[in-house]
Formats: sequence, C-alpha cells, structure tokens
Amino acid sequence: MSATYDTLVAKLHRAHHLRSINGLLGWDEQVNLPPDSADLRGEQMAIMAELEHQAASDPAIGDALTTLEQQRETLSADQQVVVREARKDFDRVALLPADFVTEKARHSSAAYHAWTRCKPANDFASYAPFIAKHLDLAKREAALQGWADRPYDYMIDQHDPGFTAGTIGTLFSELKAGLVPLVQRITASPRQREVKPLRGFPVEAQAVFLREVTEKLGFNYRRGRIDVAPHPFCEGSGADVRLTTRYAPDEPLDSLFSSIHEAGHGMYEQGLPLADHATPLGQHAGMAMHESQSRMWENQVGRSRAVWHHFEPRYRELFGTALEGVSSDDLHLAVNAVQPTFIRVDSDEVHYNLHIILRFEIEQRLFSGELAVADLPDAWNALSEELMGSRPPDDQRGVLQDVHWSGGAFGYFPSYCLGNMIAAQLWAQAQRDLPELKTDFARGEFGRLLTWLRTNVHAHGRRYSALALVERVTGSPLSPRPLLAYLEERYATLYRV
Amino acid sequence: MSATYDTLVAKLHRAHHLRSINGLLGWDEQVNLPPDSADLRGEQMAIMAELEHQAASDPAIGDALTTLEQQRETLSADQQVVVREARKDFDRVALLPADFVTEKARHSSAAYHAWTRCKPANDFASYAPFIAKHLDLAKREAALQGWADRPYDYMIDQHDPGFTAGTIGTLFSELKAGLVPLVQRITASPRQREVKPLRGFPVEAQAVFLREVTEKLGFNYRRGRIDVAPHPFCEGSGADVRLTTRYAPDEPLDSLFSSIHEAGHGMYEQGLPLADHATPLGQHAGMAMHESQSRMWENQVGRSRAVWHHFEPRYRELFGTALEGVSSDDLHLAVNAVQPTFIRVDSDEVHYNLHIILRFEIEQRLFSGELAVADLPDAWNALSEELMGSRPPDDQRGVLQDVHWSGGAFGYFPSYCLGNMIAAQLWAQAQRDLPELKTDFARGEFGRLLTWLRTNVHAHGRRYSALALVERVTGSPLSPRPLLAYLEERYATLYRV
Repeated sequence: MSATYDTLVAKLHRAHHLRSINGLLGWDEQVNLPPDSADLRGEQMAIMAELEHQAASDPAIGDALTTLEQQRETLSADQQVVVREARKDFDRVALLPADFVTEKARHSSAAYHAWTRCKPANDFASYAPFIAKHLDLAKREAALQGWADRPYDYMIDQHDPGFTAGTIGTLFSELKAGLVPLVQRITASPRQREVKPLRGFPVEAQAVFLREVTEKLGFNYRRGRIDVAPHPFCEGSGADVRLTTRYAPDEPLDSLFSSIHEAGHGMYEQGLPLADHATPLGQHAGMAMHESQSRMWENQVGRSRAVWHHFEPRYRELFGTALEGVSSDDLHLAVNAVQPTFIRVDSDEVHYNLHIILRFEIEQRLFSGELAVADLPDAWNALSEELMGSRPPDDQRGVLQDVHWSGGAFGYFPSYCLGNMIAAQLWAQAQRDLPELKTDFARGEFGRLLTWLRTNVHAHGRRYSALALVERVTGSPLSPRPLLAYLEERYATLYRV
Repeated sequence: MSATYDTLVAKLHRAHHLRSINGLLGWDEQVNLPPDSADLRGEQMAIMAELEHQAASDPAIGDALTTLEQQRETLSADQQVVVREARKDFDRVALLPADFVTEKARHSSAAYHAWTRCKPANDFASYAPFIAKHLDLAKREAALQGWADRPYDYMIDQHDPGFTAGTIGTLFSELKAGLVPLVQRITASPRQREVKPLRGFPVEAQAVFLREVTEKLGFNYRRGRIDVAPHPFCEGSGADVRLTTRYAPDEPLDSLFSSIHEAGHGMYEQGLPLADHATPLGQHAGMAMHESQSRMWENQVGRSRAVWHHFEPRYRELFGTALEGVSSDDLHLAVNAVQPTFIRVDSDEVHYNLHIILRFEIEQRLFSGELAVADLPDAWNALSEELMGSRPPDDQRGVLQDVHWSGGAFGYFPSYCLGNMIAAQLWAQAQRDLPELKTDFARGEFGRLLTWLRTNVHAHGRRYSALALVERVTGSPLSPRPLLAYLEERYATLYRV
C-alpha cells in the first residue's frame, strides 16, 4: 500500500471518529441529557460539527485523492472503491463554502423551532417561508455541487446514490398501480373490524421481551445497547450501536416492532466489515438499503406466523393476563393490522408506501416549480384523497406532520419506500436460496438469514450502489413486483380479500 | 472589555468544551459502554485528548496572555484573576513537549495494566519499575515547568495550588499527634463490637432513597443525573453533572454515603458561577477544596443525628423488614462505625486521615530519594504499624492497593485529608454563622447551609487559593484543630471514651 493511500485512510479514520463522537453526543442528548443542560450540549455539538467538517474537508484528503486518481492502475480493487467513494464524500463537503454551511445550519435550527411552533397551531402560513428558504438553499447547494439542472436528483443522490427522480418515478408508478386497489380491498374487508386492541402490558416485561427477541434475531449486545428515548432511533457504527425505543402499556406492539426495526438497522451496521468502518468499504450503501434491513426484520420476519409460532409461548408467559381472550389468530391479526391513518409514522406497512408516494410527488413538483410553497396544503390534501381516499382534517395531520423539511431533508422520504421494495426483493431471493427459513424461524433460529444478509449485502459496504447490489444478489433490477407480491400474499390471505 | 480579552475567553471556552466532551466520553465509558466497544472508545478519546491539548496550548492563548499581562492596570479585578490563572494553566500545558506528553500517556496506560495484573498477584517486584519510571517522568516534568528543585511540591501544586510539602507536613504532624491517641481510645471501646450489620436492602428502594436524599440536600437534578458505575465518581461541570454510585443489598450505607459524597462534589460544581465555567472565575479551587465539599455533606451533615432524625422515618418506611431489631441508636452507630481496615477506600472518617498521612510520608521520601522504590513495601508496612497498629498481610492490601501511582498521580493523596480539614474548619464556621442549622436539618431543610457555601466558597471560583479562601471565610489559617475537635466531639461521645 502506498504512503499516499495510508495518509488517505488515516485522514478518513479521523473524520470517522469525530463523526462518531458527534453521534454519541446526539444519542446522549436524546437518552440522558438533564432537562436544563441543553445549552451546554448545543455548544459542545457546534464545536464538534466544526471539527468534523474540518476533518472531512481537510485539503490533505483532496491532495491524496488527486494523487491516487492519477495512479489508479496501481490500486487494488478495494482501494479503487475507497478512492471513488471518498472523492464523492470529499467533494460534497469541500465544495460547500463555510458561509453556506453556516447559513444552512442556522436556518435549519430556526426552521425546526418554527415547525415545533407551527405544527400544533396548524399554522402553515407562518411555516411556509422556512420551507421556501430551504428550497432555495437546496437549489443553491445543488448548483455548487454541479447539479444546477437537476437539484432534486442531487437531493436524492445524497441519501441514495444512483437513484434519480426518474428511476424512482417509474418504480413508484408501478407500485401505486398495484397498491391502491389492494388497499381498497383490504380496507373494505370486515376482518378489519376484528382487530383486538392490546392493553395493559407492563413496561418492565415489555423491556424483557424485546431484549430477548432482538438478541435472538441477532443483534449483538456486546457491541450495542438499547435505551429509552422520545423517538426510536439507531445511532453509531457496528463497533458500538445504540438503539432506542419507548414504552406505553397500551402500545406493546409499538415498542416491540420499533425495536426490531432499529435492531435491523443495528444488525446492518454490525455486519459491515469492522476494520473498514472509517472507509467506504465498511459503510452502508445508502438509506434505502439501510431501510431494507430494518424493514425486513420488522415486517417480513417479525410479523410472520413462523416467528410468532416461536415467540408466542414466551409472550403469553410474560403477558398472560393482558392476553386473556386473545387467540393466536387474534394476535397475528393485531400484529398485521391494516388501518388507514393520516400519520405516516403510525401507518401499517401497506399504507406506508402511499404516504411516501404522496411526499415524492409533492417534492418533485416543488423542485420543478410546478407547485408553489403556498399551495402545499392543497396539493397534499388532494393527493391524500386520491391515494388514500380521504383528506386530513387539518395541517398538523397533513403537510405539517413531518420534521424532515425543517432540516432541509428533501429527497429523503423515497428511501423508506425504496427500502420496502428492496426488502421484499431480497426476501424473495433469500427464500429461494434458503428454503428452510420458515422452519428455522419456527424453531427460533435466525442465524441462517443473518449470515445470508451478511454475505450478500453487509460485506460489500459501499462497493456497489443499492441498485447494483440488488441486481447482483437477486439477478433482476429493482422492481416493485416482489413487494406487491409479498403484500398480496400476506394481507390478501389474512384479510380474506 | 478589550478584543484581546475576548479572544482569550473565546479560546478558553473552546478548550473547556473539548474537555467537557472528553469527560462525557469517560463517563459513558464507565456507565454505558458495551463490553466489546472499548477499542472504539480508546480511539475516540485519543483524538479528543489531542484536540483538547491543542486547544489548551493554542499559541493564540499565550499571545493574548502576554498582551494582557502588559496592560494589567487596564483590567478589572475579575479579568486579572482570569489572566493570572489562565497563565498558569497555559504554561502547564504549553511547556510540555508533545513527545513528553505522549511518553507519559503511553507509560500510564502500560502502568495501569501492570497494576491490574500485579495487585491480585501480590507481585510488587514486577510493578516497581513502572513506579520508578513514573517517578522519573514526574521529576522531568517538574524540571520542564521550572520546579526542578522541588518536584514533589510541583506535583502537589498541580492538584492544590498554594500547598507545599512543607505546609502539608506541618498540618499533618499536628493532626497525627491528636489522631493516633483518639483512634486508640475508640478502637479499645467495647461499643465497637455493638455495630450491627445492615443486610437485605432491596436495590430498587436504595435507589429511591438516595435520590430523595441527594435531591433534598440540594443536588439539582435538572442539571445532573445519577447512574450506576463500577466505582462512584462525579463528572462534568455545573451545566451537566453526572454522579455515579453502585448498589449491593448488604452494603446499603456504601451506596448511600458515596452518593451523598459525589452529590457534594456535584453541588460545588453546580454552585460555581455558571456563565464563567470556561474561565477560572467559574472553576473549582483545587482538589482539597472539592473534597471538603463532598466530605462535609457526607460526614458532618450526612452522618449527623439531626439529619437522620429527619430521614429515619422514610428509611424505615422503605426498609422496614431489613431494619427490624435495629434501633435509632443502632442505626446511628452503624452510620458512624469506626473500624480499622487496611484498605483506604473502605475506611471510616477517623482512620481515613491516617491512611493519607502514611501515603504522604511515603511520597515525600520517594521524591527526596531517601526511599528507594524497591523498599516501598517495607516502608509501607512499617508506617502502617506505626500509625494504625498493624501490618497488612500482603501487598494487595498494602502498597499495591491504590490505582493513583499507576497514572503518575503523585501528590494527589494529601487532597483527601486536606479536604477533611477544610470541611471541619468551614463547618465550625458555618455553625457559628448559622446557629439554626441543626434545627434546619431535623426539619429536612438544607438550603441555608447550601446558600452559605454558595456565597462563601462556590461563588469565588479560583479567585482565591484554598488556603486563602479558608482564612477569608473562617478568620484563621487552615489548621487540623477543627477536624480533631469535630472527630472528638462526634466519636468520643458515641464510643463513650
């Protein structure tokens, strides 16, 4: 290995560790921070953000990359991946003037506070200028990066390299065409009214159960932990992954499935090559791929009959009283309840995709200029009616519900639905490759699936884009058909439609 | 305020925040870190230590100080304090070559690992070279700082500015002369055998009780928290103070009094002027002063009759079963049990001072060259016999028991005993100034004492040295007599000697 390559890797290590410290400060803020200590944490994180930015935009990285790019033929295949991806990361940071970064950070903070005020007040008009300014910032950023003609593609590429509004649009149209009638069939089913509420699940026992489940699925608690936070999330890289959840006695499935979801993210991080965490060889292949891992464990695995065949006895042992009068079939139906809601984060896995398609269509129109910021609520409500059959009664359950735009995170929403598609396509392939999976699950064995994911997905880091990796593993380009087939199989059967 | 002064303060803020982040990483390591994540934390902390060192030794600080020192007459009294103390801090960091810092850090790590090996093996011979090397490093460091002729004074001054081996020696001789006979009287008392063990205290209820007690004493949980760690400690500044404790059902007084002790440290930090945490105006006046605050709340307050008069009903409510057959007098005796032990950290507040005097005498002889490292065990055992009447049966209960020397922390031990002296002298003054204290305590009111400490001690930050501050508050130079009087009053009465 050349001295220049070693320099590059050392610099990437430094940036990676600073990022990981900043991540830990953010985790601690959500999990541990005393209520009146927020000012201190704000100052600590501002300094760390500056140091992280300095390290990631260190001119020595740019110099090393230029040298290595000129001698590409001397580099191994792995080294070429590192140089290719590190160049992308470096330009993303280094091409933004410090002024611009400060302006965006300051505006994000102001917009977030505006959102926390405007959402409960249903006051879209006061929030609109903050979105407009973020839209302007996003376009300026795209121009600075050389994407002036395709600003929305630039936003998407930040989260999911290789995807464009065009590719996503094609995938989502086909998905929509199949999904809307399926949703209509399910929501018309009388089975919908048979879903029994689960109430009175002691929080301590919930914590015991979800720990047992996530550990058995394969999350490694020797390099991770789970704590309570206001919103579930997963922070950290595989060397130290912190999951969070929240508990309510009358929402036992919320904490359980959000924990399995976050553990899915965590198992992906834990499966990335540990020695390479600081370089693209050991980093995830975009948010859609990340989401595919969390969704597969949560939905395809976690909500399946086979898995509950294994876990149900223990569930009844812990929650016998609360489960009186709830049969195995009732439980399976509750775990797979499909019910329309205006709120994306409360949505079941069938409706969820429609919530995302709505946001994607809105964002596209915003960036093309076809839709003015002031007209967002009307567009939102009309699409909601078109896709899900009803209009939100107010903006806090409509256009104001999500935090994302307050941080300028346009182009992020599609990842969630793409993740569902990737999960379903990988899952179909895993079932073909490993016909014994259902038997495994029913016996409480998950190692075979995890090993398959480690080998086929995790081990590759950012070597392949998500699109290329899906095609490599499944032999076909990404398509919504496996997702539609999976939803049809599980839900049409369950709802007898 | 001049632009130069503003620059200085901004630089000090930066260094302070980096230090606070490093502190949080250390806290998280003890409290949260998953077992296999230690390597990552090591790398994170190494980078942060480097950044902290860079920030604290930033040449811009030195330049600003030089400019400000030349225009001292234009500075306010507060600004003069900042410049005086910041100069001291800056030189301590900036006068050490990076090579030396690295060598010391590397040796400390090696010595710590040697200590964890040698202590359980009773293998002093293998550990001795590590102490010898630390002694050499300490002398070199003192020389680099311009204290070549007084290396032990330099070590002391790092922890407790203003103290020297000479002043401490005088104080300790007088203390020893009074303490040794008192200890002999107490340990000869038949009351000693009446101490009843406290067993079977459920850990959950212990956590409830100590939280109630520390909150009532005045620790502000809106800017702090308490968690479980292998060893009790207090980390952070007043904007976010993290206490730790540990629980065992058969050691209820250990977790309770260590928590009160750490909360005492925490209340000092919380009492330092919040806006000035980054400058010496809002920082503590040395380890002895810090220890005086923790000891006063733990001992003078926490072990008093008046305080237990208030808390005992609640204690019995929580631990009724475990306290059956334990009278109020029994409880008071248990809380104030005096029993010889070879282990400093298990020692009662009477014997504790003898453990420190022993270490101080040893360290003095080591630095003067009178004692060779190889002869440490013999010297330790002989002093143990002289001061406490018996020799440790092995080195792990003797010279190998403490972690301090493995980190090169010579001159630190005296702080503990000086803290006891300061606590007693301040306490005597507080009682004179506030005759209603006992009545307050019996009613569960502690605000008057805390306000007195805030006004007389905390508010001053590093404006005065600990010695000067004690004299300012009590009208007399620091003396062991208040400590002897306090111990005599409490223990001679209790043990009827």
